[in-house]
Amino acid sequence: MARISCIMRGFKWSRAALVIALTLGILGALTQQALGQTKPDPAGSETGKASMAQGPGGAVFNADELKALGDNPAKPATNGDLIKTLDAVGQSTTAINLVWVLVCGFLVMFMQAGFAMVEGGFCRAKHAAHVMMTNFMIYPLGIIGFWFCGFALMFGGLGGVATLGGNPILDGSKFELFQGFSIFGTKGFMLGPGVYDVSVFAMFLFQMVFMDTTATIPTGAMAERWRFSAFMVYGLAISTIIYPIYGHMVWGGGGLANLGANYGLGHGVVDFAGSSVVHAVGGCVALAGAFILGPRLGRYSKDKKPIPMPGHNIPMALAGTFILAFGWFGFNAGSTLAASGGGALRISVVAVNTMLASASGALAATLLVKKKFGKFDPSMSANGMLAGLVAITAPCAFVSAWASLVIGLIAGIVVVYSIFFIEGKGIDDPVGAVSVHGVGGLLGTLMVGIFADGSYGASWNGVDGTVKGILYGDAGQLWAQLIGMAVCVVWAFGTGWLFFKVQSKFMKLRPSAEDEMQGLDVPEMGVEAYPDFELTDKAAARV
Amino acid sequence: MARISCIMRGFKWSRAALVIALTLGILGALTQQALGQTKPDPAGSETGKASMAQGPGGAVFNADELKALGDNPAKPATNGDLIKTLDAVGQSTTAINLVWVLVCGFLVMFMQAGFAMVEGGFCRAKHAAHVMMTNFMIYPLGIIGFWFCGFALMFGGLGGVATLGGNPILDGSKFELFQGFSIFGTKGFMLGPGVYDVSVFAMFLFQMVFMDTTATIPTGAMAERWRFSAFMVYGLAISTIIYPIYGHMVWGGGGLANLGANYGLGHGVVDFAGSSVVHAVGGCVALAGAFILGPRLGRYSKDKKPIPMPGHNIPMALAGTFILAFGWFGFNAGSTLAASGGGALRISVVAVNTMLASASGALAATLLVKKKFGKFDPSMSANGMLAGLVAITAPCAFVSAWASLVIGLIAGIVVVYSIFFIEGKGIDDPVGAVSVHGVGGLLGTLMVGIFADGSYGASWNGVDGTVKGILYGDAGQLWAQLIGMAVCVVWAFGTGWLFFKVQSKFMKLRPSAEDEMQGLDVPEMGVEAYPDFELTDKAAARV
Amino acid sequence: MARISCIMRGFKWSRAALVIALTLGILGALTQQALGQTKPDPAGSETGKASMAQGPGGAVFNADELKALGDNPAKPATNGDLIKTLDAVGQSTTAINLVWVLVCGFLVMFMQAGFAMVEGGFCRAKHAAHVMMTNFMIYPLGIIGFWFCGFALMFGGLGGVATLGGNPILDGSKFELFQGFSIFGTKGFMLGPGVYDVSVFAMFLFQMVFMDTTATIPTGAMAERWRFSAFMVYGLAISTIIYPIYGHMVWGGGGLANLGANYGLGHGVVDFAGSSVVHAVGGCVALAGAFILGPRLGRYSKDKKPIPMPGHNIPMALAGTFILAFGWFGFNAGSTLAASGGGALRISVVAVNTMLASASGALAATLLVKKKFGKFDPSMSANGMLAGLVAITAPCAFVSAWASLVIGLIAGIVVVYSIFFIEGKGIDDPVGAVSVHGVGGLLGTLMVGIFADGSYGASWNGVDGTVKGILYGDAGQLWAQLIGMAVCVVWAFGTGWLFFKVQSKFMKLRPSAEDEMQGLDVPEMGVEAYPDFELTDKAAARV
Repeated sequence: MARISCIMRGFKWSRAALVIALTLGILGALTQQALGQTKPDPAGSETGKASMAQGPGGAVFNADELKALGDNPAKPATNGDLIKTLDAVGQSTTAINLVWVLVCGFLVMFMQAGFAMVEGGFCRAKHAAHVMMTNFMIYPLGIIGFWFCGFALMFGGLGGVATLGGNPILDGSKFELFQGFSIFGTKGFMLGPGVYDVSVFAMFLFQMVFMDTTATIPTGAMAERWRFSAFMVYGLAISTIIYPIYGHMVWGGGGLANLGANYGLGHGVVDFAGSSVVHAVGGCVALAGAFILGPRLGRYSKDKKPIPMPGHNIPMALAGTFILAFGWFGFNAGSTLAASGGGALRISVVAVNTMLASASGALAATLLVKKKFGKFDPSMSANGMLAGLVAITAPCAFVSAWASLVIGLIAGIVVVYSIFFIEGKGIDDPVGAVSVHGVGGLLGTLMVGIFADGSYGASWNGVDGTVKGILYGDAGQLWAQLIGMAVCVVWAFGTGWLFFKVQSKFMKLRPSAEDEMQGLDVPEMGVEAYPDFELTDKAAARV
Repeated sequence: MARISCIMRGFKWSRAALVIALTLGILGALTQQALGQTKPDPAGSETGKASMAQGPGGAVFNADELKALGDNPAKPATNGDLIKTLDAVGQSTTAINLVWVLVCGFLVMFMQAGFAMVEGGFCRAKHAAHVMMTNFMIYPLGIIGFWFCGFALMFGGLGGVATLGGNPILDGSKFELFQGFSIFGTKGFMLGPGVYDVSVFAMFLFQMVFMDTTATIPTGAMAERWRFSAFMVYGLAISTIIYPIYGHMVWGGGGLANLGANYGLGHGVVDFAGSSVVHAVGGCVALAGAFILGPRLGRYSKDKKPIPMPGHNIPMALAGTFILAFGWFGFNAGSTLAASGGGALRISVVAVNTMLASASGALAATLLVKKKFGKFDPSMSANGMLAGLVAITAPCAFVSAWASLVIGLIAGIVVVYSIFFIEGKGIDDPVGAVSVHGVGGLLGTLMVGIFADGSYGASWNGVDGTVKGILYGDAGQLWAQLIGMAVCVVWAFGTGWLFFKVQSKFMKLRPSAEDEMQGLDVPEMGVEAYPDFELTDKAAARV
Repeated sequence: MARISCIMRGFKWSRAALVIALTLGILGALTQQALGQTKPDPAGSETGKASMAQGPGGAVFNADELKALGDNPAKPATNGDLIKTLDAVGQSTTAINLVWVLVCGFLVMFMQAGFAMVEGGFCRAKHAAHVMMTNFMIYPLGIIGFWFCGFALMFGGLGGVATLGGNPILDGSKFELFQGFSIFGTKGFMLGPGVYDVSVFAMFLFQMVFMDTTATIPTGAMAERWRFSAFMVYGLAISTIIYPIYGHMVWGGGGLANLGANYGLGHGVVDFAGSSVVHAVGGCVALAGAFILGPRLGRYSKDKKPIPMPGHNIPMALAGTFILAFGWFGFNAGSTLAASGGGALRISVVAVNTMLASASGALAATLLVKKKFGKFDPSMSANGMLAGLVAITAPCAFVSAWASLVIGLIAGIVVVYSIFFIEGKGIDDPVGAVSVHGVGGLLGTLMVGIFADGSYGASWNGVDGTVKGILYGDAGQLWAQLIGMAVCVVWAFGTGWLFFKVQSKFMKLRPSAEDEMQGLDVPEMGVEAYPDFELTDKAAARV
């Protein structure tokens, strides 16, 4: 250990660029050889043919029917024309789905700006450039990590994405922890030639921005006291391993998704857009990190009473919250991975449910805080809206309008109590990330098992019937959700805690007290966030 | 009255959350029973079939033709295949339209961030958190109000939305003020099971964000002197009643829309994307509110000369203006409610006209102010662009490129004079909202009656032929627009004035002079917007 | 010259609005007469019929086949039905493409907000309103210039846009500098009636926002010392002439695009989304402008050492960078001008490549700066990401994932050295625009000639086969790229330099030293950007 530690300490940033360049070149060359069984379609000139032509109930001709149509000797000419027509229809279906997935993915990517503004606005001016930079750099770091192996581990055993053309390119073998319970896939590393395919790349883009949402959550909880170099290593850890493994279990065809098929628990763990996969994972890692770093200097009085450290730019934080709510439409409604065919028009219900829960979450938190403290509170209103959004993320496709409002309402109330509870436990979470994403995410996962109304989710995770919560008769679904939540907490908090503990053996996670008091901007970033503005004595630590 | 007043005063925020929770639960349960005649399609598995297959001129087969196609005994097999193909085509058409409407709706929702940043930036630092919070909370408040009854009143007599599948779900009876002149619909309350339908939900999302634009306009005109609790009640009033009634008259198949069919006045009131329905309504309510609140303390000298109160964050305001101009593409081009079939490709003309008017509006205001005062003025340039956008909103689909430039130009000039006129009348509108949205909105409504060139709008509001302004031969259209403008002013200013007057009997609309001088952030929001920054003596009211 | 100068000096802003109004009216009337040969389709009711029905490999029936289908005497009824079906399919294809192009165009327009925030954030507080206003007003100025003649010069010889319906409306004659080498087109001035067509308007919107990106680049390099009136004249120059001419040569079917067809050099100059057309042109003009204006007062010490002038709002600049990275997905992936049919699904590869290059660019710059100076640097990280984005813009559709990472990596390293190099040469570029867009743009253009892997670009610019760089066997492509780069530098730097030189004869380009020291906000904009905030003595020039 000491030896590795020594190597790590001897690490020179000066060689990093060179190493990356060489790695990329070599890997690029190597993976050229690693073609899979199925031929990918990089040019997009083979994807989306007649079999993709879908009516509201799904494909209008299956492969056998299409073959029979082509073979019909009575009217070959007409049928040939019809198949050519169907090729164009299938192309339209695929293109609509691809456009939807990409546009929604872009919106989710834009949420990075929202996170940066919310977290930046709720921190103090002397750390603002530093906090913005963690939110900024998590994007490139996450891309590299997810490209390198995260995507392959998560989805490299998925087969194909039916709505994006269906070619079974992601057909790597899955690693099973025990019979029928896989925890990662094995294909798609570095987006090599074996997966150089238009539908795989669309999937990568959409999933990468989801991962990045997870990755950026701890930057809020650990703000104002995290060494930037330590943060950068974390950025690779979460995008390569921590996020993808749990993600595989729920979304990549892994063990939790198959709790229904294998053990009769409802449809297995159902998480439409990531209350658990994205938000609870991020929140649990954030909790581990905030715990290990300890509170900011001065955050608690000698008798362990919390001392408020108000955010330095409320307008920026509220504008950022709107960006998050905007991007969340892509987050949730895009998670159909389709907009046409086979019930994909449900996207409108998903979007409205998302909107409704954000509203009741914001209102509940706003009124509750007004009641408890006599004044409104912008940060609590923002966190209420975000908690509503987090909580509706798993159930958004499966519940009705009134249930969405109830879910948001509960989340808006819970988040307020959770923030005070965590603060009272001596864990310093400057922006409330653990409560919003961790607690809200677990709550949302649970809600599927309660409120799913059976109007959607036919054959979800390979189980017959639609998804129903316990209110609509399926207690097994609730059990599946509870198991999913438990695994999520154990995995994400556990690996997060382990990672930070091990990392702290090799490098300092926390800056010196002197740097922290001065604000991390100048010592770490070499600039002040607002050099032209006179800060108050307290803000500039002149007192 | 006194009794109600007493009840109101006794109102405890402490009970609000509970009441809301119970209400939601009960209403949810109740509305489960209230299924309408037509079966809604929550799963999206019945919407968008063969009859939705549309060429550029509209549906390629009507219902009778489809039936004949299926019944043709000569080639039943082939025709059956063709109908299945058409199901997929119809699904594509519907999906394209749904995607377009949702994406455009998301863009309009994002305009809330733009409004917040423009209004926040043009107010003073000591009120910044408060102004941002009115813009922030109007979104959840508006959602709740519009969900509760606004949507039903506005569209609950519409029937179906042809482009979104056409199922006649919104088939509530319309309440007629007098024969043929309906003022509200009656179906869709709380998005209950009778309207749990993919096309209705898409419509709700799109219309909700339009309503919210209206609702957020008075937060600008009434900024810096509005008690937050009073504002919250207003948020419910405008989203449940004030906006939906006028909206129904023009967009919900109500009386003003039928001025053409019933009285031969052109195509009735034509307002493509809401110069009157959205902007003028918001502007008129804003005028009533600003008038009743009175000017900010210190806004006028003893001899009633206006004293400038410059905005505290010009960069934020200009960035917000860009967000508005960005979202406006969704606002206007999305108002086709379609992107495919039956002339929907006109969306590109709509978008370009929107862009052109924003340009000439901004340039006209910029040059005019430079001429009048010798210096450029960012707030006037921003307001000029916004006025151009507001004014093109009604005519954007019906006019040519040069007319769009002329409309923007007029709006950019008018808005400057209007701002000084209103200021001179002793009405304090901190951000120019009344001039931009009220005056600009009425102007835009008028422009349809002048510049509509007959290239679009076939059978609009059930009247044969395309929409033409007086320059292209239809004086009746101009009359219809004038009537629409008059009703808009009377309704919106009238109900706005009445509402604020009645509300002021029950609760104080305006904070204490002490709070206002201090800035509303600390007394009402419990925080400063920028606690780490040293404010100037004047800004911090230390002088 | 003196006489014109005299006229120019006598120019009154007071008459500008009137002149613009008259011009618009007259031109509008005039162009009503100027209908072209091909009938445009303003209503969108003729565009997108059966011939537009496309499978993954392109149109499923060509015109002859469609005619044969209709003429087949054996089964006229069935075939007639099939053609009607195909009309609907063709409409879907066209609508998907139109939606894609418009939504991507909106995203690119939103990049204006990103540029404003990046440039505003990296300048000093006392100039912030001024810098924001150049970025704000370039949008309306650019619209007017591009509408007036820029669009026609660039695309008025293109014919039709196949993916948007294909009607050959833009069929103006091209002006050839010499045989086969055209430099501008001649149709589409002022979007007159001859091009009042849904597909032309979509094209206008998309191309206009690209032009505006070019136009806004010099506002960064010339920030803090540019008279606003001089800037406004520049805004018209670049949008009417400088950008469109080079743009025509590469994208409008002009001389550089035909280097392959005419001279056998690969596929001619290939620039998928504008590394050269947009970014290098903007960067070269910016260099000319920054050179002619000279450095900001105090930027260099007496012994010509650069003195840092740190940006005043790092959070705003980083949030703006995210907006740019968000909009860039529209920029690059939208440049297919299609999402359905004929390989358009490649958009997902384009988007992922864009994302990957942004990541490696940001990381490379971040690590390099950390190595060189021992601290991280937000402005360099942002510029690294932007350089990666600029460099991938030309090759994004033609290269694989690993090549994208390498391209971004190179760009991220080059931009850091370039910034210091240019600074060392005494050229003051406050935001690094010349390095990011100029150097990055030329680099990206070159990369096509090296890394294009032959998986895309069949028959690009009318040359058989796909696009291949020298690593994949086509040295001619590299030569074409080098010629394109040379022409770009000569044209853009040359006309930029000439324009500013000539302009400086008629009006002062640079404000007085007194105004510059005070900050341009008050002298030129009449307001402070942040009137409520106490600036430091240095920022407020009180020292």
